[in-house]
Amino acid sequence: MNLILIEPGEVDADGVAELDGPRSHHLFTVLKSQPGDNVRIGLVNGPTGLGRVLRAERARATLQCTWTSGIPERPAVDLLLALPRPKVMRRLWAHLAALGTGQIILTNAARVERNYFDTHVLSPDCYRPLILEGLQQARDTRLPPISIHRQFRRLIEDELDSLFPSGLRLVADPGASTPLSPAVVGRGERILLAIGPEGGWNAFEMQLLAARGFRPVGLGPRTLRSDTACIALLATVHAMRTMHASIAPVPAPGSPHV
Amino acid sequence: MNLILIEPGEVDADGVAELDGPRSHHLFTVLKSQPGDNVRIGLVNGPTGLGRVLRAERARATLQCTWTSGIPERPAVDLLLALPRPKVMRRLWAHLAALGTGQIILTNAARVERNYFDTHVLSPDCYRPLILEGLQQARDTRLPPISIHRQFRRLIEDELDSLFPSGLRLVADPGASTPLSPAVVGRGERILLAIGPEGGWNAFEMQLLAARGFRPVGLGPRTLRSDTACIALLATVHAMRTMHASIAPVPAPGSPHV
Repeated sequence: MNLILIEPGEVDADGVAELDGPRSHHLFTVLKSQPGDNVRIGLVNGPTGLGRVLRAERARATLQCTWTSGIPERPAVDLLLALPRPKVMRRLWAHLAALGTGQIILTNAARVERNYFDTHVLSPDCYRPLILEGLQQARDTRLPPISIHRQFRRLIEDELDSLFPSGLRLVADPGASTPLSPAVVGRGERILLAIGPEGGWNAFEMQLLAARGFRPVGLGPRTLRSDTACIALLATVHAMRTMHASIAPVPAPGSPHV
Repeated sequence: MNLILIEPGEVDADGVAELDGPRSHHLFTVLKSQPGDNVRIGLVNGPTGLGRVLRAERARATLQCTWTSGIPERPAVDLLLALPRPKVMRRLWAHLAALGTGQIILTNAARVERNYFDTHVLSPDCYRPLILEGLQQARDTRLPPISIHRQFRRLIEDELDSLFPSGLRLVADPGASTPLSPAVVGRGERILLAIGPEGGWNAFEMQLLAARGFRPVGLGPRTLRSDTACIALLATVHAMRTMHASIAPVPAPGSPHV
């Protein structure tokens, strides 16, 4: 927990917040906070700042909140993900929030099992705490909007243009020969990255994605599990997006090992 | 399972292998193999090829093995990782094998808890099946060598030069201003990537790493959990390392992956 997230409803008119549960436990046990200490705080979907500890006990802590910075920028990469198995999806929430995902669009696909949609993992009661955990790890405050779509075709044809009105659309495709880098490096706009189910999108789905502007990008020779692929691709796209197109390798520093 | 890995001891002099457990179950239940079908196979630390199904039952399958390709190339990125919590380490094995890791060097550090070393997760009985799972996912056959070091200083000063004799040494450092890309893009040599514990390397450890040629690279503004960071960095380094290929294509050495 590198930032303590506070819900707007938890702060009173004087800027005082009462916290309990994992957050007071963290202040008391990990940070060993004493009255007068300052800790990093953030308001959910709001600014970051400092919390002066007024009281810190294991079960309850009181902070005087001061908001010093603006709302963190929205991450520039969005994810369109064919719903993975519940066990995998449960693990992904915190990773996606920590890495930075502008929004998470979950969809059905031919190779997604229908019963995946009936899981607790898709209820805010389950995923919200996991997303908050990821945001607190990465010092972000923005909860990515999440939408869940049981009809792939309707999503792509009718709904996607309002969810992602402009920017670069990419679909990860193990069979594509275009690598990721020329598609991503030096592009300033938002990127929507589509990642298929285990077993891949079927031909109809790939055609529909292509017809709606998704460009297939290859992933190298290794086939990855959904969760590995999501983390790997999201991180790589973020890293490449912030590179300059004209980047030139710099000489290695004078070290005997280089 | 995109490749069925077979231990050398399981293949008889006529190239016939008897499989049981998850592999026969996979052939029977997922692939629904019939006698005469061909499936992708690999020999642990050996070549890949095709297995002609002679018999496929849930509990036992028989394959006639033909090795058609060479041994997959060793992944060019090695990992030096401060041992994470057992629960996190258990999950990482398959990810690291799937993404491709040349070798995995696990080390103690000031901010690693000593009891992490006493866990079952570090015994081959536990990690070997998880690594095989990751390799089968990614169609690789090479088990990365794994070494476990309880003394950080001794590892870095005395042992590392034989484990990683030449190549580029990088240490992930949230405080570093140098981004990853100029250090990695277009570098042909092997890369050893050091990732610290939750809470980071301490000053002594960072100095020791710097003295032994490790170059700090930044990770952007988001602080990640060990497991997210490992997957994210390994994937990004692999992707950036192969970027030069798209600028100046070179013929791929060795044999293609099946």
